[in-house]
Amino acid sequence: MRKETRMINELISKIKKTGAPIVVGLDPMLKYIPEHLQKKAFEQYGENLKGAAEAVWLFNKEIIDNIYDLIPAVKPQIAMYEQFGIEGLAVFQRTVSYCKEKGLIVIGDVKRGDIGSTSEAYAIGHLGKVQIGSQSFRGFEEDFVTVNPYLGSDGVNPFIKVCKEEHKGIFVLVKTSNPSSGEFQDRMLQMEDGSSRPLYEIVGEHVAKWGEECMGDSYSNVGAVVGATYPEQGKILRRIMPKAFILVPGYGAQGGKGADLVHFFNADGLGAIVNSSRGIIAAYQQKEYAEYGAERFAEASRAAVLAMKEDIAGALGSR
Amino acid sequence: MRKETRMINELISKIKKTGAPIVVGLDPMLKYIPEHLQKKAFEQYGENLKGAAEAVWLFNKEIIDNIYDLIPAVKPQIAMYEQFGIEGLAVFQRTVSYCKEKGLIVIGDVKRGDIGSTSEAYAIGHLGKVQIGSQSFRGFEEDFVTVNPYLGSDGVNPFIKVCKEEHKGIFVLVKTSNPSSGEFQDRMLQMEDGSSRPLYEIVGEHVAKWGEECMGDSYSNVGAVVGATYPEQGKILRRIMPKAFILVPGYGAQGGKGADLVHFFNADGLGAIVNSSRGIIAAYQQKEYAEYGAERFAEASRAAVLAMKEDIAGALGSR
Repeated sequence: MRKETRMINELISKIKKTGAPIVVGLDPMLKYIPEHLQKKAFEQYGENLKGAAEAVWLFNKEIIDNIYDLIPAVKPQIAMYEQFGIEGLAVFQRTVSYCKEKGLIVIGDVKRGDIGSTSEAYAIGHLGKVQIGSQSFRGFEEDFVTVNPYLGSDGVNPFIKVCKEEHKGIFVLVKTSNPSSGEFQDRMLQMEDGSSRPLYEIVGEHVAKWGEECMGDSYSNVGAVVGATYPEQGKILRRIMPKAFILVPGYGAQGGKGADLVHFFNADGLGAIVNSSRGIIAAYQQKEYAEYGAERFAEASRAAVLAMKEDIAGALGSR
Repeated sequence: MRKETRMINELISKIKKTGAPIVVGLDPMLKYIPEHLQKKAFEQYGENLKGAAEAVWLFNKEIIDNIYDLIPAVKPQIAMYEQFGIEGLAVFQRTVSYCKEKGLIVIGDVKRGDIGSTSEAYAIGHLGKVQIGSQSFRGFEEDFVTVNPYLGSDGVNPFIKVCKEEHKGIFVLVKTSNPSSGEFQDRMLQMEDGSSRPLYEIVGEHVAKWGEECMGDSYSNVGAVVGATYPEQGKILRRIMPKAFILVPGYGAQGGKGADLVHFFNADGLGAIVNSSRGIIAAYQQKEYAEYGAERFAEASRAAVLAMKEDIAGALGSR
């Protein structure tokens, strides 16, 4: 069993050990999964939800086996499993569990958020234990989850409560990587002193405040999601939330580059972890890694992780 | 098979038929479930996740059997199932499926929201079909789901796309019923003309715009969530989104009363559907319905639905 510790401390220790502030997004889509794996899964379970879920599992397992020693963490995107119903979610759980066996920290990208006892049910289901009679059980068992802040503190506090009990953590959406993230997040708010500030800054301030309740040694167990595609905003948010680890999506396939990332990190070289999904798990489908072919897709993923690691280390080294 | 029609038309037709603009929230917690049902489930499957999920199923089924003829729709809150992991989610699916057999419209309270292909995966998983080889399959199969707007149009449009294909609908969170909903939703935004308006109004305007793309006969398949606990805001939002059906949580246990609800409805007597969860499914635990006892809990739920129907009809009749 893993030692119960503040999860953010453990994440930092693994980042230092691997030298890679990198998280790989396990967001499988059938079109990424090589023909031979799909065929194998469909032959065993049929061309149906169970067969598709098995194909996802075979794909994930081979990738994990090829990259687990290079990185501190993975981030399975639950939507990609949920689309296959119960069968898909069973493979989500199997993936989480296998990653933990391999020593990886698992960030469940679930973007949940509700109020009161409902948010608590999500927190219990993904990070905690549910009480049944005299015993308690884990439904899913991620180490961190992503949380949507739109409902305010009522939605976030139940997660923090469970994080404290379980020594786990969350990343709250602040400024997301997508093109339309500004529609609401960038709106200018009227402040009491007559000035105006964008919504994402105010959400960032709440993250800093929530984080104070749930500190690790140097960083909080309450982190934030800020897209690589918005480096200027990242710079400001880094300052507003000095103790929050920033989970940075949008690297690679979404357009973010290593050089865009430097401002997400603190002077200690820590404070951010950069996600790449498609760019790693479907590397073999890109021109750069085409030589590997579909049979050696997981080796292509390993090569892509090594390249990403070098890109980020280079950008951080030259600042 | 249900005739493929615009889902909002079907919801309106069922509201007219039952005379009840009411949705019952199937948000089971173990503490609501009578001892004798828990015992039965645990004896069969053990005091574990499967046993707890079975207790939820037995509880839901008896309530549904006792109220399905009175109401147009139910709203299972997926968090309450997700906390029991895969076993719980299997009972969520079983509940959705059973409610549809009974002729009820099912609003999945999932509050999902992500970007691009990820939001599309949620939409496909809950409202649509996933393509596997030459066939397509449904993971879950709600008629409507609730959606979180924080990520902007990139997060909502994939749901609208699936709604159009499948003749289904969504309710977008605009102003939620919880005490801290104002933390971000009520923030005053600076408008170009120098005026200022709260965020929830701007989100409401987006709902109206998104809804134009996906109209039924008189209302849109894109609705909104506005809490009963905020009647003044409801009045304004009713005007901003004239074609959006409003799903109104917060009635009963959260403090909203029939009289607070009149402004959520249009002059045609339509335009809103009011949710009660705990107030119905755990009615037997309230003083008012204590006479039923735990054995007849589902009859207490039926009595509570009838009382709620009368309260709302009275409030609407006297305006």
